[in-house]
Amino acid sequence: MGDFITMPKLGMTMTEGKIVKWLACEGERIGKGDSIFEVETDKTSLEADALTGGVLLKIYRKEGETVPVNSPVAFVGEEGEMIPDVGNETVFQEENTAPGQQKQACDYDLIVVGAGPGGYVCALRAAQLGAKVAVVERDMPGGTCLNRGCIPTKAYYESARRWREVWDCAQFGIEIQDASFHWERVLERKNGIVDRLRIGIETLLRKNGIERINGNAVIRKADTVEVDGKTYRCRHIVLATGAKAAHAVATAEQLQTTDTVLDMGQLPDSIAIIGGGVIGCEMASILNAFGVRVTIIEALLRILPAMDEEVADCLLKEMRKNGIEVLTGTTCKSITKSGEGYRVVLEDGQEIMPEMVLEAVGRVPECAAFEGLGVELSPEGYVKTDEWMRTSIPTVYAIGDVNGRFQLAHAASAQGILAAEHMFADQKPAAMEMVIPACVFAELEIACAGITEQEAKEKGIPVKVSKFPYSANGKALAMGAGKGFVKVIADERWGEILGVHIIGEGASSLIGEAVMAMRCEATADAAGEAVHAHPTLSEALMEAFLGAGKGALHQ
Amino acid sequence: MGDFITMPKLGMTMTEGKIVKWLACEGERIGKGDSIFEVETDKTSLEADALTGGVLLKIYRKEGETVPVNSPVAFVGEEGEMIPDVGNETVFQEENTAPGQQKQACDYDLIVVGAGPGGYVCALRAAQLGAKVAVVERDMPGGTCLNRGCIPTKAYYESARRWREVWDCAQFGIEIQDASFHWERVLERKNGIVDRLRIGIETLLRKNGIERINGNAVIRKADTVEVDGKTYRCRHIVLATGAKAAHAVATAEQLQTTDTVLDMGQLPDSIAIIGGGVIGCEMASILNAFGVRVTIIEALLRILPAMDEEVADCLLKEMRKNGIEVLTGTTCKSITKSGEGYRVVLEDGQEIMPEMVLEAVGRVPECAAFEGLGVELSPEGYVKTDEWMRTSIPTVYAIGDVNGRFQLAHAASAQGILAAEHMFADQKPAAMEMVIPACVFAELEIACAGITEQEAKEKGIPVKVSKFPYSANGKALAMGAGKGFVKVIADERWGEILGVHIIGEGASSLIGEAVMAMRCEATADAAGEAVHAHPTLSEALMEAFLGAGKGALHQ
Repeated sequence: MGDFITMPKLGMTMTEGKIVKWLACEGERIGKGDSIFEVETDKTSLEADALTGGVLLKIYRKEGETVPVNSPVAFVGEEGEMIPDVGNETVFQEENTAPGQQKQACDYDLIVVGAGPGGYVCALRAAQLGAKVAVVERDMPGGTCLNRGCIPTKAYYESARRWREVWDCAQFGIEIQDASFHWERVLERKNGIVDRLRIGIETLLRKNGIERINGNAVIRKADTVEVDGKTYRCRHIVLATGAKAAHAVATAEQLQTTDTVLDMGQLPDSIAIIGGGVIGCEMASILNAFGVRVTIIEALLRILPAMDEEVADCLLKEMRKNGIEVLTGTTCKSITKSGEGYRVVLEDGQEIMPEMVLEAVGRVPECAAFEGLGVELSPEGYVKTDEWMRTSIPTVYAIGDVNGRFQLAHAASAQGILAAEHMFADQKPAAMEMVIPACVFAELEIACAGITEQEAKEKGIPVKVSKFPYSANGKALAMGAGKGFVKVIADERWGEILGVHIIGEGASSLIGEAVMAMRCEATADAAGEAVHAHPTLSEALMEAFLGAGKGALHQ
Repeated sequence: MGDFITMPKLGMTMTEGKIVKWLACEGERIGKGDSIFEVETDKTSLEADALTGGVLLKIYRKEGETVPVNSPVAFVGEEGEMIPDVGNETVFQEENTAPGQQKQACDYDLIVVGAGPGGYVCALRAAQLGAKVAVVERDMPGGTCLNRGCIPTKAYYESARRWREVWDCAQFGIEIQDASFHWERVLERKNGIVDRLRIGIETLLRKNGIERINGNAVIRKADTVEVDGKTYRCRHIVLATGAKAAHAVATAEQLQTTDTVLDMGQLPDSIAIIGGGVIGCEMASILNAFGVRVTIIEALLRILPAMDEEVADCLLKEMRKNGIEVLTGTTCKSITKSGEGYRVVLEDGQEIMPEMVLEAVGRVPECAAFEGLGVELSPEGYVKTDEWMRTSIPTVYAIGDVNGRFQLAHAASAQGILAAEHMFADQKPAAMEMVIPACVFAELEIACAGITEQEAKEKGIPVKVSKFPYSANGKALAMGAGKGFVKVIADERWGEILGVHIIGEGASSLIGEAVMAMRCEATADAAGEAVHAHPTLSEALMEAFLGAGKGALHQ
């Protein structure tokens, strides 16, 4: 997708500039950083550089014209690409008005729709870069992640971990005669943490001068956001509306989703969880620790289908060992109410009678707010974006779950930062290929980044695979955490690290090192030669790196 | 320190080579990789490259001479440097003998003296590179680290952590009515872990064909190691003899050291720990958790004097809050037996009456085994080494505590690998400046790498310092671990990360990422722009990186 060249803001007080001379002509290929036209302001004259390379497809403004700062003067792209007609586009009329008028017509530089981890982070970064920003949110700031996802489950996870440890402390020299578990306090603690973090976000928004608009946004034009009847004009819009729980099971009954299950007043005796993905596994592990009988029903042949197979297998064994029933390769034929609970009939005829049913079958994009806008969608209904998160309307960006790239809070945040910097930073950020880690907090902790062994095979990449077990790591043994392993996938030809998959204690803290190594394009040897403190869990990572290179030491 | 140029082994079967022509002359400056002489073997003729740069100070072997592989043919160094006389050096006679004789005269390519984390790792790496290796050890393999240091304390640390959690679980929804703690089981568990890891090392040595020689080594010549009357000849020796507890307190009484305190049959009611360094703080935290009344006596004005001041202060506050008495800036005037315990009189007149006294005032190098060898020592008694860990006798290396560079197990291992690769790898390793992390496992976990803020000031390096609190990290709050912070020191001019100091949950797992970033010479911005999974503790590191660069998001 092409990019506009706009009149640069060359000084604090510059509002417009005169195009003195074009240094390139239409059809010419220009490189990033090439001088492409001479600008004259009231103070100075300078050459403006191209911020992107490509073919100069269109020059909108002639020599001698005076153009407001940030208005498009040319369009750069690849041959055959459609050239936007800025004269007739609503979105550019705004930018083409004189600066005085602009102030009046435009309430904000940016309106972000949705205050989840994508939206609020994008707003923060944009404000840090000097933009006037508003965020529209119909619910609580923090989005699914803070209110109905990552944070609540992690709060529960810690209670689950400690409650498990109560029953596994004899080997550590501790004897517990009597202990009890109180769900209402777990719930209360979770609410306290969520409130505290939400207040943190609200404070950050306020401190950064970001306006909060509460209500339902409706977007029909690329420069206008309506919220409960009031209209706000803006230069840019970021769609960060997220996703909502999908319903895949044909039933008349009202099943639990993650929106509701995290706030249940009391724990059920038993639960059937439909879906063995990340959410299903995390909920199963937590509830199992709290004494709930859990059955997972997964349509595919294994749990965590997107993750490394050995990692998923290792978790599966641990879940089953701890009493979770995991049924794979089967789906629900019918779910009906039955007494205090449900009757779930599976395709294979098996019947289970859980007190509660949780549907965790994935999420679908939340596009209601901008149905009338006409941004291009993928066949699955996600907003299509380019590498800087721009939609088919160049001043409208879409970040996070709604663009379907990843369903991960931190990916949304990273996209929000990228979009903000693309809109407002002096130097446009490179649209690099990011290494996006993913974590699962279940019976064992999982963290991974990059490709799996299976993916490498499918893509025909020759790889060297190395695995190092936690059971050979001194710190893991000292912690009583000898379960799990670190697996490194490196390119057989150059040694480059392509994927790292960790299952075991502290995985989510260790993956950062792997991401850093991959981001720096370190070879497995170079990463393994970094000195790792002893005794630490990170030595397992070191050994796995070396194993994919010149050879592990302790194996 | 200069370096020999030796006859290279240019093929699997090559045993000697003829110097056809010198391509450089004495006094000439040569660069690493420059061709310096032409070699002719029975198979081929080639140019030999310099593996180090410098001035070609001496040519030992004339054109036309045939020289065994690995024998010195020239010496490269800096002007004015002493040129070793290889003709008269015992150590080179070995290498100058013809290959047939060599086999007979030389029992091993390498004898490593000491099987601690430096020695056994060095032996493993050397064996992996094809060397015939023996390790001499008078005690148990694993050294201080495994038997009387890192591992035992980490096993205790886990019991301590869990016992502390027993009394802090109400907020997590858990109520414990009655619990008891059993020291003998803690001891037993520790012994089990140490045994298991020791067996692991023994297995590794065996698997790699490394010979174990049990007994006291005596080294008088650079190619001979005597063990209990038996003599072994070798081409290289690595001194990995470690260090032993220092005694700094003038007293006639037998005080505990870390050699003895970790195996005590029962816990005392109270203990005075002399020394507030890493060992003192770790032991204080463990024993305090187990209910022992602890007093630390530190001569300097603060604990952990080598660490970042704010980090040490944060730990000090936490220790005091948990009931550890910490006396700084004072020393012991006298220690005498008194009833079941001791009477400790301090310089300021204060008296304490602990049941036990532990001296943790540092360690001194263990040089007894090679007193007669004549390697050069520093004024403090450490073996002087060059950047590849070679002593003043070029075929004798010294690694780990005995060379006084660091008193850290992983530094010893890294040095062992470096030495092994310098001796036996086809490509000599670069003597890079390694980033060496250090960890402390006390009331809070500490991990750091690189310089402190104070060091930067002393060295006049302009730095940008950034701190991010655990209390603003969602995962930390979810874990009930909101104490501590991450501090990043970056060069103000180029943004390069110079130091990272972490105190708080999981610090020892997080520091690996910081080391990786520093090793890759990432700027604070580049490190902070890496995508960090949410919610994880590593986000605190990310924010601190950004804070030392373009600005933290959540602050």
